[in-house]
Amino acid sequence: MEFDREGELVLPAARGKALRLKAGSAVRITNPFGTQAIDTWAFAADDMSEYLSMENVRSFNSVVCIDQGVALVSTERRPIITIVEDTSAGRHDTLLCACNPAIYRELGVKGFHRSCSGNMHEALTEIGRDIPFTPAALNLFMSVRVEPDQTLTRLLPASKPGSYVTLRAEFDVILVLSSCPQDVTTINGPDRTPRDCMLEILAPGAFA
Amino acid sequence: MEFDREGELVLPAARGKALRLKAGSAVRITNPFGTQAIDTWAFAADDMSEYLSMENVRSFNSVVCIDQGVALVSTERRPIITIVEDTSAGRHDTLLCACNPAIYRELGVKGFHRSCSGNMHEALTEIGRDIPFTPAALNLFMSVRVEPDQTLTRLLPASKPGSYVTLRAEFDVILVLSSCPQDVTTINGPDRTPRDCMLEILAPGAFA
Repeated sequence: MEFDREGELVLPAARGKALRLKAGSAVRITNPFGTQAIDTWAFAADDMSEYLSMENVRSFNSVVCIDQGVALVSTERRPIITIVEDTSAGRHDTLLCACNPAIYRELGVKGFHRSCSGNMHEALTEIGRDIPFTPAALNLFMSVRVEPDQTLTRLLPASKPGSYVTLRAEFDVILVLSSCPQDVTTINGPDRTPRDCMLEILAPGAFA
Repeated sequence: MEFDREGELVLPAARGKALRLKAGSAVRITNPFGTQAIDTWAFAADDMSEYLSMENVRSFNSVVCIDQGVALVSTERRPIITIVEDTSAGRHDTLLCACNPAIYRELGVKGFHRSCSGNMHEALTEIGRDIPFTPAALNLFMSVRVEPDQTLTRLLPASKPGSYVTLRAEFDVILVLSSCPQDVTTINGPDRTPRDCMLEILAPGAFA
Protein backbone atom coordinates (compact mmCIF):
# COMPACT_ATOMS: atom_id res chain seq x y z
CA MET A 1 0.00 0.00 0.00
CA GLU A 2 1.26 3.51 -0.82
CA PHE A 3 2.12 5.86 1.99
CA ASP A 4 4.45 8.65 2.99
CA ARG A 5 6.63 7.78 5.91
CA GLU A 6 6.74 10.75 8.26
CA GLY A 7 8.82 9.26 11.00
CA GLU A 8 10.06 6.07 12.50
CA LEU A 9 10.86 5.18 16.09
CA VAL A 10 11.44 2.25 18.35
CA LEU A 11 8.93 1.34 21.03
CA PRO A 12 11.41 -0.15 23.51
CA ALA A 13 10.57 -3.42 25.21
CA ALA A 14 8.46 -2.94 28.34
CA ARG A 15 8.06 0.81 27.72
CA GLY A 16 5.23 3.08 26.65
CA LYS A 17 4.93 5.93 24.18
CA ALA A 18 2.28 8.58 23.56
CA LEU A 19 1.89 9.92 20.02
CA ARG A 20 -0.12 12.87 18.77
CA LEU A 21 -1.80 11.75 15.54
CA LYS A 22 -3.60 14.18 13.26
CA ALA A 23 -6.84 13.06 11.62
CA GLY A 24 -5.97 10.65 8.80
CA SER A 25 -2.44 9.94 10.01
CA ALA A 26 -1.56 6.39 10.85
CA VAL A 27 1.01 4.42 12.78
CA ARG A 28 2.29 1.04 11.63
CA ILE A 29 3.30 -1.15 14.57
CA THR A 30 5.70 -3.90 13.55
CA ASN A 31 6.28 -6.85 15.86
CA PRO A 32 9.73 -8.26 14.95
CA PHE A 33 9.23 -11.53 16.86
CA GLY A 34 5.42 -11.64 16.53
CA THR A 35 5.20 -12.26 20.26
CA GLN A 36 4.93 -8.84 21.84
CA ALA A 37 1.54 -7.71 23.19
CA ILE A 38 0.96 -3.98 22.68
CA ASP A 39 -1.61 -2.40 24.98
CA THR A 40 -3.27 0.44 23.10
CA TRP A 41 -5.29 3.47 24.15
CA ALA A 42 -6.66 6.40 22.15
CA PHE A 43 -7.99 9.70 23.46
CA ALA A 44 -9.58 12.64 21.65
CA ALA A 45 -6.76 15.21 21.50
CA ASP A 46 -9.10 18.07 22.42
CA ASP A 47 -10.99 16.22 25.18
CA MET A 48 -9.30 13.37 27.00
CA SER A 49 -12.64 12.33 28.54
CA GLU A 50 -13.54 10.84 25.14
CA TYR A 51 -11.50 7.71 24.62
CA LEU A 52 -11.43 4.33 22.87
CA SER A 53 -13.78 2.21 24.98
CA MET A 54 -13.54 -1.58 24.94
CA GLU A 55 -17.03 -1.94 26.49
CA ASN A 56 -18.54 0.32 23.85
CA VAL A 57 -16.60 -1.50 21.09
CA ARG A 58 -18.02 -4.86 22.24
CA SER A 59 -21.52 -3.39 22.44
CA PHE A 60 -21.31 -1.59 19.08
CA ASN A 61 -19.93 -4.58 17.14
CA SER A 62 -21.28 -7.52 19.22
CA VAL A 63 -17.84 -9.12 19.35
CA VAL A 64 -15.26 -9.72 22.09
CA CYS A 65 -12.09 -9.67 20.01
CA ILE A 66 -10.91 -7.38 17.27
CA ASP A 67 -10.12 -7.95 13.63
CA GLN A 68 -9.82 -5.49 10.77
CA GLY A 69 -13.33 -4.19 9.99
CA VAL A 70 -14.48 -3.91 13.59
CA ALA A 71 -15.37 -0.31 14.44
CA LEU A 72 -13.08 0.98 17.19
CA VAL A 73 -15.46 3.44 18.79
CA SER A 74 -15.00 5.93 21.58
CA THR A 75 -17.11 6.52 24.66
CA GLU A 76 -19.22 8.71 22.33
CA ARG A 77 -19.56 5.70 20.01
CA ARG A 78 -17.82 7.31 17.03
CA PRO A 79 -14.83 5.63 15.37
CA ILE A 80 -11.68 7.06 16.95
CA ILE A 81 -9.04 4.80 15.32
CA THR A 82 -9.30 2.20 12.55
CA ILE A 83 -7.19 -0.84 11.75
CA VAL A 84 -6.24 -0.22 8.11
CA GLU A 85 -3.67 -3.03 7.76
CA ASP A 86 -3.24 -6.20 9.79
CA THR A 87 -0.85 -9.01 8.87
CA SER A 88 -0.97 -10.51 12.38
CA ALA A 89 -3.03 -13.47 13.57
CA GLY A 90 -5.74 -10.94 14.52
CA ARG A 91 -8.37 -11.63 17.18
CA HIS A 92 -6.81 -8.92 19.32
CA ASP A 93 -8.00 -9.04 22.92
CA THR A 94 -10.49 -6.59 24.50
CA LEU A 95 -11.19 -8.52 27.70
CA LEU A 96 -8.18 -8.34 30.00
CA CYS A 97 -7.08 -5.32 31.99
CA ALA A 98 -3.77 -3.69 31.23
CA CYS A 99 -1.22 -5.21 33.60
CA ASN A 100 -0.82 -3.09 36.72
CA PRO A 101 1.20 -3.06 39.94
CA ALA A 102 -1.40 -5.22 41.76
CA ILE A 103 -1.00 -8.02 39.19
CA TYR A 104 2.75 -8.19 39.69
CA ARG A 105 2.30 -8.29 43.49
CA GLU A 106 -0.18 -11.16 42.93
CA LEU A 107 2.46 -12.94 40.81
CA GLY A 108 4.97 -12.70 43.65
CA VAL A 109 7.16 -9.92 42.26
CA LYS A 110 8.88 -7.93 45.03
CA GLY A 111 9.36 -4.20 44.56
CA PHE A 112 8.77 -2.16 41.43
CA HIS A 113 7.88 -3.81 38.12
CA ARG A 114 6.96 -1.87 35.00
CA SER A 115 3.34 -2.32 33.88
CA CYS A 116 1.22 -1.32 30.90
CA SER A 117 -0.98 0.76 33.17
CA GLY A 118 2.05 2.59 34.56
CA ASN A 119 3.53 2.97 31.07
CA MET A 120 0.31 4.61 29.85
CA HIS A 121 0.27 7.20 32.62
CA GLU A 122 4.02 7.82 32.28
CA ALA A 123 3.74 8.27 28.51
CA LEU A 124 0.89 10.77 28.88
CA THR A 125 2.87 12.74 31.44
CA GLU A 126 5.78 12.96 28.99
CA ILE A 127 3.56 14.92 26.58
CA GLY A 128 1.94 17.03 29.30
CA ARG A 129 -1.32 15.09 29.52
CA ASP A 130 -2.95 13.24 32.38
CA ILE A 131 -6.00 11.14 33.12
CA PRO A 132 -7.12 10.08 36.59
CA PHE A 133 -7.94 6.45 35.75
CA THR A 134 -6.92 3.58 33.47
CA PRO A 135 -9.37 2.72 30.69
CA ALA A 136 -9.46 -0.87 29.48
CA ALA A 137 -6.86 -1.26 26.72
CA LEU A 138 -7.07 -2.80 23.27
CA ASN A 139 -4.48 -5.55 23.61
CA LEU A 140 -2.97 -5.87 20.14
CA PHE A 141 -1.18 -9.13 19.28
CA MET A 142 -2.62 -10.71 22.45
CA SER A 143 -4.66 -13.89 22.21
CA VAL A 144 -7.45 -14.78 24.60
CA ARG A 145 -10.34 -17.12 23.86
CA VAL A 146 -13.74 -17.33 25.54
CA GLU A 147 -14.73 -20.99 25.92
CA PRO A 148 -18.32 -22.30 25.60
CA ASP A 149 -18.56 -22.36 29.45
CA GLN A 150 -17.68 -18.63 29.40
CA THR A 151 -14.30 -19.10 30.99
CA LEU A 152 -11.36 -17.37 29.43
CA THR A 153 -8.15 -18.99 28.16
CA ARG A 154 -4.91 -17.08 27.67
CA LEU A 155 -3.23 -18.37 24.50
CA LEU A 156 0.36 -18.05 23.34
CA PRO A 157 0.95 -15.26 20.82
CA ALA A 158 0.11 -16.52 17.32
CA SER A 159 1.48 -13.83 15.00
CA LYS A 160 4.37 -14.36 12.60
CA PRO A 161 7.67 -12.50 13.10
CA GLY A 162 7.50 -9.15 11.32
CA SER A 163 3.74 -8.93 11.31
CA TYR A 164 2.22 -5.51 11.71
CA VAL A 165 -0.96 -3.64 12.51
CA THR A 166 -1.60 -0.14 11.22
CA LEU A 167 -3.92 2.19 13.09
CA ARG A 168 -5.36 5.32 11.48
CA ALA A 169 -6.62 8.26 13.54
CA GLU A 170 -10.21 9.15 12.61
CA PHE A 171 -9.81 12.60 14.13
CA ASP A 172 -6.97 14.23 16.10
CA VAL A 173 -6.05 11.76 18.80
CA ILE A 174 -3.48 10.98 21.44
CA LEU A 175 -2.49 7.36 20.88
CA VAL A 176 -0.71 5.52 23.69
CA LEU A 177 1.12 2.25 23.08
CA SER A 178 2.74 0.05 25.70
CA SER A 179 5.06 -2.86 24.98
CA CYS A 180 3.72 -5.18 27.68
CA PRO A 181 6.39 -5.73 30.38
CA GLN A 182 4.92 -9.10 31.39
CA ASP A 183 7.86 -11.47 31.99
CA VAL A 184 6.31 -13.81 34.56
CA THR A 185 3.49 -15.38 32.52
CA THR A 186 3.76 -16.44 28.86
CA ILE A 187 1.41 -13.83 27.37
CA ASN A 188 4.43 -12.41 25.45
CA GLY A 189 5.58 -15.87 24.40
CA PRO A 190 7.13 -18.92 26.05
CA ASP A 191 10.47 -17.19 26.59
CA ARG A 192 8.79 -14.51 28.72
CA THR A 193 10.84 -11.75 27.11
CA PRO A 194 9.38 -8.34 26.24
CA ARG A 195 10.65 -7.15 22.85
CA ASP A 196 11.20 -3.87 21.03
CA CYS A 197 8.67 -3.02 18.32
CA MET A 198 8.95 -0.55 15.43
CA LEU A 199 6.61 2.37 14.88
CA GLU A 200 6.28 4.14 11.52
CA ILE A 201 4.24 7.32 11.35
CA LEU A 202 2.39 7.53 8.04
CA ALA A 203 1.07 10.68 6.41
CA PRO A 204 -2.60 11.67 6.41
CA GLY A 205 -4.50 10.28 3.48
CA ALA A 206 -2.27 7.24 2.99
CA PHE A 207 -5.18 4.96 3.84
CA ALA A 208 -8.12 7.18 2.86
CA MET B 1 -30.40 -16.71 56.10
CA GLU B 2 -30.50 -14.57 59.26
CA PHE B 3 -30.04 -10.83 58.95
CA ASP B 4 -31.09 -7.55 60.45
CA ARG B 5 -32.97 -5.38 58.06
CA GLU B 6 -31.71 -1.84 58.41
CA GLY B 7 -33.73 -0.20 55.73
CA GLU B 8 -35.78 -0.80 52.66
CA LEU B 9 -36.30 1.33 49.62
CA VAL B 10 -37.53 1.22 46.07
CA LEU B 11 -35.15 1.57 43.17
CA PRO B 12 -37.58 3.17 40.74
CA ALA B 13 -37.72 1.95 37.16
CA ALA B 14 -35.13 3.64 34.94
CA ARG B 15 -33.55 5.49 37.89
CA GLY B 16 -30.30 5.21 39.79
CA LYS B 17 -29.37 5.25 43.46
CA ALA B 18 -26.07 5.60 45.33
CA LEU B 19 -25.76 3.90 48.73
CA ARG B 20 -23.04 4.23 51.33
CA LEU B 21 -22.37 0.72 52.64
CA LYS B 22 -20.18 0.10 55.67
CA ALA B 23 -17.81 -2.89 55.61
CA GLY B 24 -19.88 -6.06 56.10
CA SER B 25 -23.22 -4.42 55.28
CA ALA B 26 -25.17 -5.82 52.38
CA VAL B 27 -27.94 -4.87 50.01
CA ARG B 28 -30.47 -7.36 48.72
CA ILE B 29 -31.76 -6.41 45.27
CA THR B 30 -35.10 -8.04 44.47
CA ASN B 31 -36.34 -8.15 40.91
CA PRO B 32 -40.16 -8.45 41.09
CA PHE B 33 -40.56 -9.43 37.42
CA GLY B 34 -37.14 -11.05 37.03
CA THR B 35 -36.59 -8.99 33.91
CA GLN B 36 -34.89 -5.81 35.08
CA ALA B 37 -31.18 -5.36 34.37
CA ILE B 38 -29.40 -3.54 37.20
CA ASP B 39 -26.14 -1.84 36.27
CA THR B 40 -23.87 -1.88 39.30
CA TRP B 41 -20.78 0.07 40.32
CA ALA B 42 -18.78 0.10 43.55
CA PHE B 43 -16.20 2.64 44.67
CA ALA B 44 -13.96 2.73 47.75
CA ALA B 45 -15.68 5.26 50.01
CA ASP B 46 -12.40 6.92 50.96
CA ASP B 47 -10.89 6.96 47.45
CA MET B 48 -13.19 6.96 44.44
CA SER B 49 -10.24 6.18 42.15
CA GLU B 50 -10.42 2.58 43.43
CA TYR B 51 -13.48 0.92 41.97
CA LEU B 52 -14.99 -2.41 40.93
CA SER B 53 -13.26 -3.16 37.62
CA MET B 54 -14.80 -5.53 35.09
CA GLU B 55 -11.49 -5.92 33.23
CA ASN B 56 -9.68 -6.83 36.45
CA VAL B 57 -12.53 -9.19 37.47
CA ARG B 58 -12.22 -11.04 34.14
CA SER B 59 -8.43 -11.20 34.49
CA PHE B 60 -8.48 -12.26 38.16
CA ASN B 61 -11.09 -15.02 37.70
CA SER B 62 -10.58 -15.96 34.02
CA VAL B 63 -14.31 -15.69 33.34
CA VAL B 64 -16.50 -13.31 31.33
CA CYS B 65 -19.73 -13.58 33.33
CA ILE B 66 -20.41 -13.56 37.03
CA ASP B 67 -21.88 -16.14 39.36
CA GLN B 68 -21.70 -16.40 43.13
CA GLY B 69 -18.12 -17.34 44.05
CA VAL B 70 -16.42 -15.10 41.50
CA ALA B 71 -14.21 -12.52 43.24
CA LEU B 72 -15.46 -9.03 42.47
CA VAL B 73 -12.17 -7.19 42.65
CA SER B 74 -11.32 -3.54 42.41
CA THR B 75 -8.72 -1.77 40.30
CA GLU B 76 -6.33 -2.69 43.17
CA ARG B 77 -7.41 -6.34 42.73
CA ARG B 78 -8.87 -6.74 46.21
CA PRO B 79 -12.48 -7.89 46.68
CA ILE B 80 -14.67 -4.80 46.98
CA ILE B 81 -18.14 -6.43 47.01
CA THR B 82 -19.22 -10.08 47.18
CA ILE B 83 -22.36 -11.83 45.97
CA VAL B 84 -23.55 -13.59 49.16
CA GLU B 85 -26.98 -14.71 47.86
CA ASP B 86 -28.19 -15.23 44.32
CA THR B 87 -31.51 -16.80 43.39
CA SER B 88 -31.41 -15.42 39.83
CA ALA B 89 -30.37 -17.23 36.67
CA GLY B 90 -26.85 -15.90 37.32
CA ARG B 91 -24.26 -15.46 34.56
CA HIS B 92 -24.43 -11.71 35.09
CA ASP B 93 -22.85 -9.74 32.27
CA THR B 94 -19.46 -7.98 32.44
CA LEU B 95 -19.02 -7.27 28.73
CA LEU B 96 -21.41 -4.53 27.64
CA CYS B 97 -21.08 -0.86 28.44
CA ALA B 98 -23.68 0.84 30.58
CA CYS B 99 -26.22 2.37 28.23
CA ASN B 100 -25.39 5.99 27.49
CA PRO B 101 -26.77 8.93 25.49
CA ALA B 102 -24.88 7.88 22.35
CA ILE B 103 -26.61 4.46 22.32
CA TYR B 104 -30.06 6.02 22.40
CA ARG B 105 -29.13 8.38 19.56
CA GLU B 106 -27.93 5.31 17.63
CA LEU B 107 -31.30 3.64 18.31
CA GLY B 108 -33.12 6.62 16.81
CA VAL B 109 -34.36 8.23 20.02
CA LYS B 110 -34.85 11.98 19.66
CA GLY B 111 -34.07 14.24 22.61
CA PHE B 112 -33.26 13.20 26.16
CA HIS B 113 -33.48 9.57 27.26
CA ARG B 114 -32.41 8.35 30.69
CA SER B 115 -29.38 6.03 30.66
CA CYS B 116 -27.50 3.88 33.16
CA SER B 117 -24.42 6.00 32.63
CA GLY B 118 -26.37 9.19 33.31
CA ASN B 119 -28.10 7.56 36.30
CA MET B 120 -24.74 6.66 37.83
CA HIS B 121 -23.40 10.19 37.60
CA GLU B 122 -26.69 11.68 38.82
CA ALA B 123 -26.82 9.30 41.79
CA LEU B 124 -23.25 10.14 42.81
CA THR B 125 -24.02 13.86 42.61
CA GLU B 126 -26.99 13.34 44.95
CA ILE B 127 -24.59 12.17 47.67
CA GLY B 128 -21.96 14.81 46.94
CA ARG B 129 -19.59 12.58 44.98
CA ASP B 130 -18.33 12.77 41.44
CA ILE B 131 -16.12 10.86 39.01
CA PRO B 132 -14.94 12.16 35.64
CA PHE B 133 -15.61 8.96 33.65
CA THR B 134 -17.88 5.92 33.48
CA PRO B 135 -16.31 2.62 34.53
CA ALA B 136 -17.68 -0.54 32.93
CA ALA B 137 -20.63 -1.77 35.03
CA LEU B 138 -21.47 -5.19 36.41
CA ASN B 139 -24.77 -5.81 34.66
CA LEU B 140 -26.80 -7.84 37.16
CA PHE B 141 -29.73 -9.89 35.79
CA MET B 142 -28.49 -9.26 32.26
CA SER B 143 -27.75 -12.17 29.94
CA VAL B 144 -25.15 -12.08 27.23
CA ARG B 145 -23.39 -15.10 25.75
CA VAL B 146 -20.08 -15.31 23.90
CA GLU B 147 -20.38 -17.74 20.99
CA PRO B 148 -17.58 -20.04 19.79
CA ASP B 149 -16.82 -17.56 16.97
CA GLN B 150 -16.31 -14.87 19.67
CA THR B 151 -19.39 -12.91 18.71
CA LEU B 152 -21.72 -11.83 21.44
CA THR B 153 -25.43 -12.60 21.70
CA ARG B 154 -27.85 -10.58 23.84
CA LEU B 155 -30.32 -12.97 25.46
CA LEU B 156 -33.69 -12.31 27.03
CA PRO B 157 -33.62 -12.02 30.83
CA ALA B 158 -33.80 -15.52 32.35
CA SER B 159 -34.47 -14.90 36.05
CA LYS B 160 -37.70 -15.87 37.84
CA PRO B 161 -40.00 -13.17 39.23
CA GLY B 162 -38.95 -12.29 42.77
CA SER B 163 -35.39 -13.48 42.38
CA TYR B 164 -32.72 -11.55 44.20
CA VAL B 165 -29.01 -10.92 44.43
CA THR B 166 -27.36 -9.79 47.67
CA LEU B 167 -24.11 -7.83 47.57
CA ARG B 168 -21.93 -7.43 50.65
CA ALA B 169 -19.42 -4.58 51.01
CA GLU B 170 -15.93 -5.90 51.74
CA PHE B 171 -14.87 -2.51 53.06
CA ASP B 172 -16.63 0.87 53.19
CA VAL B 173 -17.96 1.46 49.70
CA ILE B 174 -20.22 3.66 47.64
CA LEU B 175 -22.49 1.30 45.72
CA VAL B 176 -24.36 2.67 42.71
CA LEU B 177 -27.30 0.81 41.18
CA SER B 178 -29.21 1.75 38.04
CA SER B 179 -32.47 0.22 36.91
CA CYS B 180 -31.65 0.09 33.20
CA PRO B 181 -33.91 2.54 31.27
CA GLN B 182 -33.57 0.53 28.05
CA ASP B 183 -37.05 0.46 26.43
CA VAL B 184 -36.08 0.18 22.76
CA THR B 185 -34.32 -3.21 22.75
CA THR B 186 -35.47 -6.30 24.68
CA ILE B 187 -32.60 -6.46 27.18
CA ASN B 188 -35.16 -5.80 29.98
CA GLY B 189 -37.63 -8.31 28.53
CA PRO B 190 -39.86 -8.61 25.48
CA ASP B 191 -42.30 -5.97 26.77
CA ARG B 192 -39.47 -3.39 26.82
CA THR B 193 -40.63 -1.99 30.18
CA PRO B 194 -38.21 -0.93 32.90
CA ARG B 195 -39.45 -2.02 36.34
CA ASP B 196 -39.08 -0.97 39.96
CA CYS B 197 -36.84 -3.16 42.09
CA MET B 198 -36.65 -3.45 45.89
CA LEU B 199 -33.53 -2.78 47.93
CA GLU B 200 -33.10 -4.05 51.50
CA ILE B 201 -30.11 -2.85 53.48
CA LEU B 202 -28.83 -5.62 55.74
CA ALA B 203 -26.74 -5.15 58.87
CA PRO B 204 -23.00 -5.81 59.01
CA GLY B 205 -22.18 -9.36 59.88
CA ALA B 206 -25.37 -10.87 58.51
CA PHE B 207 -23.38 -12.78 55.89
CA ALA B 208 -20.05 -13.03 57.70
